[in-house]
Amino acid sequence: MITINEHYNKLQASYLFSNIAKRVAEYQKNNPEKEIIKMGIGDVTKPLPSACIRAFHQAVDEMAEETSFRGYGPEQGYEFLREAISKHDFQAQGADIAADEIFVSDGAKCDTGNIQELFSTDAVVAIPDPVYPVYLDTNVMAGRTGNYQNGRYENIVYLDAVKENNFVPALPKQTVDLIYLCFPNNPTGSTISKDELKTWVDYAHQNKALILFDAAYEAFINNSALPKSIYEIDGAREVAIEFRSFSKKAGFTGTRCAYTVVPKACTAYDSYGQPQFLHNLWSRRHSTKFNGVSYPVQRAAEAIYSQEGQQQSADLVAYYMKNAALIRSQVADLGFECVGGDNSPYIWIDGRTDSWNFFDLLLEKAGVVCTPGAGFGTCGEGYIRLSAFNSYENVSLAMQRIRDSLG
Amino acid sequence: MITINEHYNKLQASYLFSNIAKRVAEYQKNNPEKEIIKMGIGDVTKPLPSACIRAFHQAVDEMAEETSFRGYGPEQGYEFLREAISKHDFQAQGADIAADEIFVSDGAKCDTGNIQELFSTDAVVAIPDPVYPVYLDTNVMAGRTGNYQNGRYENIVYLDAVKENNFVPALPKQTVDLIYLCFPNNPTGSTISKDELKTWVDYAHQNKALILFDAAYEAFINNSALPKSIYEIDGAREVAIEFRSFSKKAGFTGTRCAYTVVPKACTAYDSYGQPQFLHNLWSRRHSTKFNGVSYPVQRAAEAIYSQEGQQQSADLVAYYMKNAALIRSQVADLGFECVGGDNSPYIWIDGRTDSWNFFDLLLEKAGVVCTPGAGFGTCGEGYIRLSAFNSYENVSLAMQRIRDSLG
Repeated sequence: MITINEHYNKLQASYLFSNIAKRVAEYQKNNPEKEIIKMGIGDVTKPLPSACIRAFHQAVDEMAEETSFRGYGPEQGYEFLREAISKHDFQAQGADIAADEIFVSDGAKCDTGNIQELFSTDAVVAIPDPVYPVYLDTNVMAGRTGNYQNGRYENIVYLDAVKENNFVPALPKQTVDLIYLCFPNNPTGSTISKDELKTWVDYAHQNKALILFDAAYEAFINNSALPKSIYEIDGAREVAIEFRSFSKKAGFTGTRCAYTVVPKACTAYDSYGQPQFLHNLWSRRHSTKFNGVSYPVQRAAEAIYSQEGQQQSADLVAYYMKNAALIRSQVADLGFECVGGDNSPYIWIDGRTDSWNFFDLLLEKAGVVCTPGAGFGTCGEGYIRLSAFNSYENVSLAMQRIRDSLG
Repeated sequence: MITINEHYNKLQASYLFSNIAKRVAEYQKNNPEKEIIKMGIGDVTKPLPSACIRAFHQAVDEMAEETSFRGYGPEQGYEFLREAISKHDFQAQGADIAADEIFVSDGAKCDTGNIQELFSTDAVVAIPDPVYPVYLDTNVMAGRTGNYQNGRYENIVYLDAVKENNFVPALPKQTVDLIYLCFPNNPTGSTISKDELKTWVDYAHQNKALILFDAAYEAFINNSALPKSIYEIDGAREVAIEFRSFSKKAGFTGTRCAYTVVPKACTAYDSYGQPQFLHNLWSRRHSTKFNGVSYPVQRAAEAIYSQEGQQQSADLVAYYMKNAALIRSQVADLGFECVGGDNSPYIWIDGRTDSWNFFDLLLEKAGVVCTPGAGFGTCGEGYIRLSAFNSYENVSLAMQRIRDSLG
C-alpha cells in the first residue's frame, strides 16, 4: 500500500495568499461595482526594463535558428549570467563571491523551499516570527516539526521579531542548527545592521550552525551603512547561504529568475562531525532535480547588469520607494505606528486590533487589500502589511480612501 | 551542529552525463582537429517551431507594457495552457483528463524528481533497470534505499528490462508500493502495449500501489495501437500520475516547459489506510515550493497546440524519426541487435562488449559520442544508446564513420 508523507497533514489548511484571494473574490462578487486596490501580495506592477525586453527578444530569435538555437543549458546557469552576478552584486560591493559559487534558478521561493533537503531531518531549526511562510511549511513537510499547537509548530525555535527588539530577533537562548534570516525583512520591512548581522555570523561559527540568508529585497536598501549581502560580514562564507531574486529588483515575478549563493567554504557536518562542503551537495541536488532556467529568461536577466539595465532597474526601485514613502507618511499621520518602507517595499503597521479584522475593515471601508500580519505568525497578530508594489496613482488613491474611512 | 542529509553520501560519485562530458572534453583536448558528432545526450538540435517563436515574442511584448504586464501567475500554470493540454493531449485521445488535473512546470526532470516527496520514506519502490537516473537518485536522496552494493541500491525493487522480456519488465514478484514506468522508454526506446500496461494498472489496484508514468516521449509513437497516455487504460485515473514534456516534442529543452497530470481520483493512503487525494498534496507542494513557469514560455507552449504549431511539431518529430530509422537500419546492417527507434528517438544497441569500452571505441575510432548503457543500470551493461536528436547530415556522417570503423 502506497502511504503518503503524513507530515503534509500537519500543514495548516490553506496558504496565506490563497485565503486572501478567496476573501477578495467573495467581496468582489458581492460588490461588483467597487474598484479594489490590491496592496497585499508583494507583486510588482511595472513592466520589465526595456533593456531586458530587448535581450529577451534577441534570445527568442536565437531559438528560431538552427545555428544559434540552444538546447539544455548548464543546470547551474549560463556562465554569462553567473559572471555578471558575481561581478556586479558581490565583487563590486567588496564581497568575495565567485561565479561558480552562484546557482541560477527559477525562483527564490523554490530555492528557499528546496535548500532544507540538504540537511538531516533532526536539525534544530530557528525561524523568525513573523515570517514568509515557505521556510516554515517546507520544514513541516520534511518532518522537522511536531504538530501545530496554539499557532505554532512544535520543535521549531521561533525567533520573535517584535516592537521591543525593533523587529530584529535576538539570538536564540537554546542551541540551534539551521537559522533562517531575511533582511530587508518580509513581512516587516525591518533591516539589520552590520554589527547585528555579525552577531549571527559569530553565533553560527560558535555553534557550527548554518544561516540561510534571504536577501530578495536587497535592492531596496537606501542606507549605504546597511549590508546588502551577508558576505559583507567577515566569516560569513563558511556559515551562510544567500538567496537573491530578480523578481522585485527588476520586475521578474512573472518571468522567473533568481539565484542562490553557496560559497565553496560553506560547510555542514556529517554524523562523525566531519565537515562537508555544501557547494557539492547543492550542486548535486541542482543537477539531479533541475534542468536550468529558460535560456531567453537568462539573457533577459543578464541585461539587468548592462549600464542601461542597471539604470532602469534602479528607476523601478525608486518608483516603488516613492510609494513606500507616501504610505509611511500617511500611516504615521493617521497615528499608526509602523516600521519598514524606508529600506524595503513593505510597511508593517500596528493596526491596534486583530489582523484579519483590520484586513476586513480596510477591504470593506476602503476597498484596499492588505496582508494580515497574523498570516505570517503569532507575532504578526495585530499587524498588517502594506506593499509599495503598485502604481503611484493607486497608492495615492488607496491612502486617500484609508484616510477617509479611518481618519 | 548542522548535519547533512547523509543519504546524499550514498549517491554514486557522478552523474552519467557529466562523466560523458568529461571524457569527451578530454578527447577533444587531445584531438583538437577531430570533429565529434554527439549522439549521446538526448538533446534536440532543431529550432523552436515558428508558431512558438511568434507567440513567445508577443508575450515578451506584453511584458513591456504596464497594461498587459503579468506578474506572478498561478503556480499550477495558466488556464489557457492547461485547457489546451487537456483538450488536445487527452480529451481528443479519449482520455478523461480535465484542465484542473494538469500542473504546468519547468521540466519533467523536476517533476519526476520532486513527486516522491509526497510519499512516506518507507514506501517500497520499484524502478526499472536500465533507467533514467533521476528516479533512482531522488529516492536515494530521500532515504528510501540502503547503500550501493554491486551496482545496485539496497531496498529498491529493480524491474529488469532485458532482451528476454523485450525490454518491458515483468510484474514484480514481491509487493511494491510505488512503481516508475517510462514508455516509450528512455534509454531503451522500447514501448508497451495497452494489454501490457493494463496488467500494471490492475496490479496497482490489487496492491494499492501507485504508478508514476513518464510519457515524455509519447510524441514519437507512430503505431496507433500503442498507448500515448496511461489514462487510455481503464482504471488508471485512480492509480497513476503521468509526466509529459514539451522538450522533445517541440524543442523546448532550453526553453523549459512540461506538465504533470494528477487526476482527482488518484489516491494514496494514510497510515490508518484511509485514502488521501494526491491532487491535494501535489497542489500543496506546487504552491509552497514553486512559483509557476515564465509567462512568455507558457504562451510559447500554448502555440504548440495551434493548427500551425501542431503541424510544425509533427514535422520536427518526423525529422528526428527519419534519423532514427537510418540509425536502426545501419546498425542492423552491421549485424548488431537493437530495439527502439521505431516509436522512440532512442536506439538501444547490444554492443557485445562492455558499455564503456564500446563508448570509448566509438569515440576513438568514429568520433561519435554515444551513451553507455551501463550508466543506466546493471541491465544496461553491454548496451549503448544512440539518440536520433541531431541533423540528418550529422547522423548520416556518424553512421558512415561507424560503418567504416566497425564494418
